[in-house]
Amino acid sequence: AFTRGMHTVTLIPGDGIGPEISNAVIKIFEAAKAPIQWEERNVTAIQGPGGRWMIPPEAKDSMDKSKIGLKGPLKTPIAAGHPSMNLLLRKTFDLYANVRPCVSIEGYKTPYTDVDLVTIRENTEGEYSGIEHVIVDGVVQSIKLITEDASRRIAEYAFEYARNNQRSSVTAVHKANIMRMSDGLFLRKCREVAETFKDVKFTEMYLDTVCLNMVQDPTQFDVLVMPNLYGDILSDLCAGLIGGLGVTPSGNIGANGVAIFESVHGTAPDIAGMDMANPTALLLSAVMMLRHMGLHGHGNRIETACFNTIRDKKVLTKDLGGNSKCSEFTNEICQRVKDLE
Amino acid sequence: AFTRGMHTVTLIPGDGIGPEISNAVIKIFEAAKAPIQWEERNVTAIQGPGGRWMIPPEAKDSMDKSKIGLKGPLKTPIAAGHPSMNLLLRKTFDLYANVRPCVSIEGYKTPYTDVDLVTIRENTEGEYSGIEHVIVDGVVQSIKLITEDASRRIAEYAFEYARNNQRSSVTAVHKANIMRMSDGLFLRKCREVAETFKDVKFTEMYLDTVCLNMVQDPTQFDVLVMPNLYGDILSDLCAGLIGGLGVTPSGNIGANGVAIFESVHGTAPDIAGMDMANPTALLLSAVMMLRHMGLHGHGNRIETACFNTIRDKKVLTKDLGGNSKCSEFTNEICQRVKDLE
Ligand SMILES: CC(C)[C@H](C(=O)O)[C@@H](O)C(=O)O
Ligand SMILES: CC(C)[C@H](C(=O)O)[C@@H](O)C(=O)O
Repeated sequence: AFTRGMHTVTLIPGDGIGPEISNAVIKIFEAAKAPIQWEERNVTAIQGPGGRWMIPPEAKDSMDKSKIGLKGPLKTPIAAGHPSMNLLLRKTFDLYANVRPCVSIEGYKTPYTDVDLVTIRENTEGEYSGIEHVIVDGVVQSIKLITEDASRRIAEYAFEYARNNQRSSVTAVHKANIMRMSDGLFLRKCREVAETFKDVKFTEMYLDTVCLNMVQDPTQFDVLVMPNLYGDILSDLCAGLIGGLGVTPSGNIGANGVAIFESVHGTAPDIAGMDMANPTALLLSAVMMLRHMGLHGHGNRIETACFNTIRDKKVLTKDLGGNSKCSEFTNEICQRVKDLE
Repeated sequence: AFTRGMHTVTLIPGDGIGPEISNAVIKIFEAAKAPIQWEERNVTAIQGPGGRWMIPPEAKDSMDKSKIGLKGPLKTPIAAGHPSMNLLLRKTFDLYANVRPCVSIEGYKTPYTDVDLVTIRENTEGEYSGIEHVIVDGVVQSIKLITEDASRRIAEYAFEYARNNQRSSVTAVHKANIMRMSDGLFLRKCREVAETFKDVKFTEMYLDTVCLNMVQDPTQFDVLVMPNLYGDILSDLCAGLIGGLGVTPSGNIGANGVAIFESVHGTAPDIAGMDMANPTALLLSAVMMLRHMGLHGHGNRIETACFNTIRDKKVLTKDLGGNSKCSEFTNEICQRVKDLE
């Protein structure tokens, strides 16, 4: 459905460096003749009836129609009771899978080479239930909620992802030795789903063991699937292995094709508006988006142009070790995109 | 109280390679003339009245008298309802602080150098409460329990540890942006205690950010203090940075001087009894023990002998990259301990 004609995408530029890196992506998409029409929307939360925080209707309506969003960084709300916008977006559109491919980038030196893995995080429940109580003074409990449905759904997503992306194994990450019932349920669903994907190898591993093995040899991992908080931790850890949040794409996937792709770094207010920001994470998220829409040709071309620019080390933003401006880095990628046609 | 005369220590050799590496420690302690008398005890859990699992009375009595234990690896119980022995020991003796120094070892190559940090993990509550329920079919909750008392106690321990070990900063690791009440309480207690330790710098950081920064530059961290599960994860991650569980010591500290020091690697049944095991983790745990007892001279001498043996790369067990037997590695350390006198 996505592959012919123009497609509308809801663009949420975000705060701080958000508008600059969004412009970079728009320019590069133009150079690549990607058939995308941007519908720009602001998602600063508003309070609806009863004080409930919600996404502004113009943004919600746009997403409901386009189904696809691209989002820059949003500043952390400081008003009391104001929810994290990232959490509100995940919830509003039931974006149940957070997907982060972590792949070593040629020419960008880190202590690791040949990292090529994907973390798939359950994005709706677990430790993020928001249910907490004071039992008696000085005694607090938080509830980690695990359901059969959400566990099966994320396990299925992980195995389908593996199959569709020529990946050979899925590892379920858990602490079912400690949280026997909750992580136990999650793990059981993973095992059940594994039974129906005989072409994909299934393994299971304790979270602490994964962390230890990950820093010793990340090349042993392929697709990893896990409950919410473990995904929060592991996805950041893995991003660190390949160079940090400035170069790591992320996608939040819901049912029926709905998805929001985003850079997960901060708003970097100190350099906002100074033409110094690095648009790589948002651009690679936009590449994930193109692939999600079936536009593999455009996605591959943009990705190659971006990686070649980094590999050749001639035009790099400061955080990547160079001294070029965001606009120069963007132009370099545009030129390479055109040359690849 | 600990520094004069002979001191009794409860020795729990453990399973698999446990007895071999315990013997290595005994030999090296003899060579160092450490004033320790070992009281060997088995801790295979037994079932008391009402089927409750407990530590055998001979082991419990020994620990109650000696207050200090040294423990090898224990195999994971497979009987249904049988608790993890590690958890049962922590609980029985209220060992509320798990302390793991992670220091780069000269000559043992990993992707990192100059790591020198300590993870301090709350060891009694949090996600390890063991309280779980099925709400309705397919919906399970686990309870994370955070108390003011345990949070204050571990924060105080961390700051005192920093002060007593010439460390300059303590970082509280949390997800109070998500678990606002539980991690919020933990964080508040850390802040309060920080106020009373003006000589130690205090910072706070999200767990995901710590993981990311840790793999990018671990040298920025000093003492880290955190709730139970986060400590489980981070301590293993940090062990990975310096070479894994085979070279990382660990101590479980309770009130009134009670403590159990242990190697946290597995029982390695495949090489048990073959004189191939690496006793380093248990030995360095025993060094922590000596320091805990005020026996710094003996501790330092043994540690230096061990590190020099590894640095010189002449006599190393297989996992350390050599081809010597456990007994040869042990003898080498004994010789160096004597030479250091
Ligand atoms: C911003 C924060 C609420 C969020 C999380 O904890 O999930 C972030 O760390 C992430 O990974 O998207
Ligand atoms: C064996 C297991 C129960 C334990 C834990 O999860 O705490 C282990 O991983 C540890 O760190 O001591």
